[in-house]
Amino acid sequence: MAKIKIACLPGDGIGVEVMASAKEVLQTLATVEEDLKIELVDFNWGSDHYIETGEMMPEHAIDTLKGFDAVFLGAVGNPALIPDHISLWGMLIKIRRELSLSLNIRPARVINGIQSPLHSPRKFDFIVVRENSEGEYSESGGVIHNGVNEIAVQNAIFTRQATERAMRFAFDLARKRESKVTSATKSNGIVHSMPFWDRVFQEVAKDYPDVKTESIHIDALAAFIVTKPQNFDVIVASNLFGDILTDLAGAVMGSIGIAPSANLNPDGRFPSMFEPVHGSAPDIAGQEKANPIGQIWTAALMLDHLGHLNASKRIIEAIEEVTKQGIKTADVGGAYSTREVTNAICDYLISSAQ
Amino acid sequence: MAKIKIACLPGDGIGVEVMASAKEVLQTLATVEEDLKIELVDFNWGSDHYIETGEMMPEHAIDTLKGFDAVFLGAVGNPALIPDHISLWGMLIKIRRELSLSLNIRPARVINGIQSPLHSPRKFDFIVVRENSEGEYSESGGVIHNGVNEIAVQNAIFTRQATERAMRFAFDLARKRESKVTSATKSNGIVHSMPFWDRVFQEVAKDYPDVKTESIHIDALAAFIVTKPQNFDVIVASNLFGDILTDLAGAVMGSIGIAPSANLNPDGRFPSMFEPVHGSAPDIAGQEKANPIGQIWTAALMLDHLGHLNASKRIIEAIEEVTKQGIKTADVGGAYSTREVTNAICDYLISSAQ
Ligand SMILES: CC(C)[C@H](C(=O)O)[C@@H](O)C(=O)O
Ligand SMILES: CC(C)[C@H](C(=O)O)[C@@H](O)C(=O)O
Repeated sequence: MAKIKIACLPGDGIGVEVMASAKEVLQTLATVEEDLKIELVDFNWGSDHYIETGEMMPEHAIDTLKGFDAVFLGAVGNPALIPDHISLWGMLIKIRRELSLSLNIRPARVINGIQSPLHSPRKFDFIVVRENSEGEYSESGGVIHNGVNEIAVQNAIFTRQATERAMRFAFDLARKRESKVTSATKSNGIVHSMPFWDRVFQEVAKDYPDVKTESIHIDALAAFIVTKPQNFDVIVASNLFGDILTDLAGAVMGSIGIAPSANLNPDGRFPSMFEPVHGSAPDIAGQEKANPIGQIWTAALMLDHLGHLNASKRIIEAIEEVTKQGIKTADVGGAYSTREVTNAICDYLISSAQ
Repeated sequence: MAKIKIACLPGDGIGVEVMASAKEVLQTLATVEEDLKIELVDFNWGSDHYIETGEMMPEHAIDTLKGFDAVFLGAVGNPALIPDHISLWGMLIKIRRELSLSLNIRPARVINGIQSPLHSPRKFDFIVVRENSEGEYSESGGVIHNGVNEIAVQNAIFTRQATERAMRFAFDLARKRESKVTSATKSNGIVHSMPFWDRVFQEVAKDYPDVKTESIHIDALAAFIVTKPQNFDVIVASNLFGDILTDLAGAVMGSIGIAPSANLNPDGRFPSMFEPVHGSAPDIAGQEKANPIGQIWTAALMLDHLGHLNASKRIIEAIEEVTKQGIKTADVGGAYSTREVTNAICDYLISSAQ
């Protein structure tokens, strides 16, 4: 197979540490997997770059990224220095929008060796398909101030095209799995966008008569992620609802620090982008406390997407082996550092290859 | 004390059963508490009324309710017959809006005898103050169809007045508790309303220098409700975020079927309204399966609000006594019916009074 070229954007905070871990895992894997040739190119964009230049990324950043097979991102944001909506909309959300990464795919499942906070966690294994380009994350709106009162207006905008695209992806994915799609709605309280969402869901569902469907209001669905996570196969959700459900799914898996995500460009025109669900966690940055598994599992999603299915599986296997041995960071009840967990995963990849 | 007049609106589905339970508890309590004189007046409004008349409630319903000291509601909605946004906006949301019930107060805490799904639940005890009149629940918006594509626009509208009112209530409440307020935000993704929300929060906080504050994005906050519920004292949230967090809080308490709520009219011009957090659950209606505790605990909030603090405490005591004895419905791991749980609570109220 041809060499794959990956743009690595560690970003801010613990992004830097977990990116270093994941790169090491990828490089180790490339030494033992004959088929796998990777070129990793670093870009030190983010909050420090902003402080120096007034921009999170240089002018031609998006064009530069288009020359790669995939974009691998750590985490963005340092709210003590830069307001979140500037740092995130100047980098993370900008990349999602300008590379047309309209689907955000976030798997959630029990990982061997990582204890869920639920006292009787059944085996669960679901994937959230999050609409990633529009909806509640919209720049339309503003604040009016008449000298006495203030009114903030925020427009959520849902197009048929993007809504349907996320739903069709969810149905196609469900067909390869347990053939069930759950739609996250809130049409009882949000009376324009969500009844529209429900209608598109019902229409798309007609093209997949073999797939079971259900629509659950986001409040009840959040509760079910805690009480019945084993009930779900594929969940399709708006930008905001997908955001909330996937952090919650991370918590139920045992730590938001292990949850991976893939931001897909569905038509393949541009590279897709891969990032863990967690943020930059400036409070624990530089202390070797960050859980590298979210970023490493994300690397596995990236390899899978690029056609390296075997290499991807080997990463997951290595993660589960190491966590089963108890080599874990503090967020999942262990006493090991970022570096120690990373080394153990690399060691396993080498020893199991022999 | 004067007799209190309560309008009882059982509504739909299990609302009817749990309302019957809570009324029985109130009547029993009135026989043993000398101070407590209650007049309960029933109104059979809801989905059946809609099917007969085309309206969820008669024309002068709101005026009628204004003649009471409090409104006690079961649950509204029967989506198999009537779209949710018609039934709910024609009754539940209409009452919230037209009685100016701009605050929705939802306590969450460990109840003796009810097991949380968390395997090591620490003692948690927090209250969500939910803005109840505006925000994401707005009738402003619509769907455009140009024959080829469709665009749905949903406007979320936040006023300074309502935002500040919810926040000041939260801070005042925190002063009577552990002096900590957590603000639910999402200003990193939702760039007009949520930065506005954050700014108002920071400004209001200046008037309460003795109260600890924090702002947490809703995705992370949802995860923390699962991983660190003991960290919270008072949480202030928008209409939608409050909705999601309180179902989640119900799940973490052990069942959404036990969670209570108070919809307050802050200036006391109109009666306040009291309803459990759960919905009408048509799938289990009429089967004696519904957990009556949400509605009964809600009755306790109502009595507390009306100045009957002792009667309110006795209800909570009775609930915890009965659950500790294992007399519980199936949703919380018991094998008892709605009626049996209710009887046990009434029996305890009588026997403990002697
Ligand atoms: C039924 C629905 C409209 C309502 C809401 O979202 O407010 C309910 O979920 C609640 O929490 O009271
Ligand atoms: C950082 C933030 C803007 C982002 C989002 O809300 O999309 C994050 O929470 C995520 O889930 O990727």
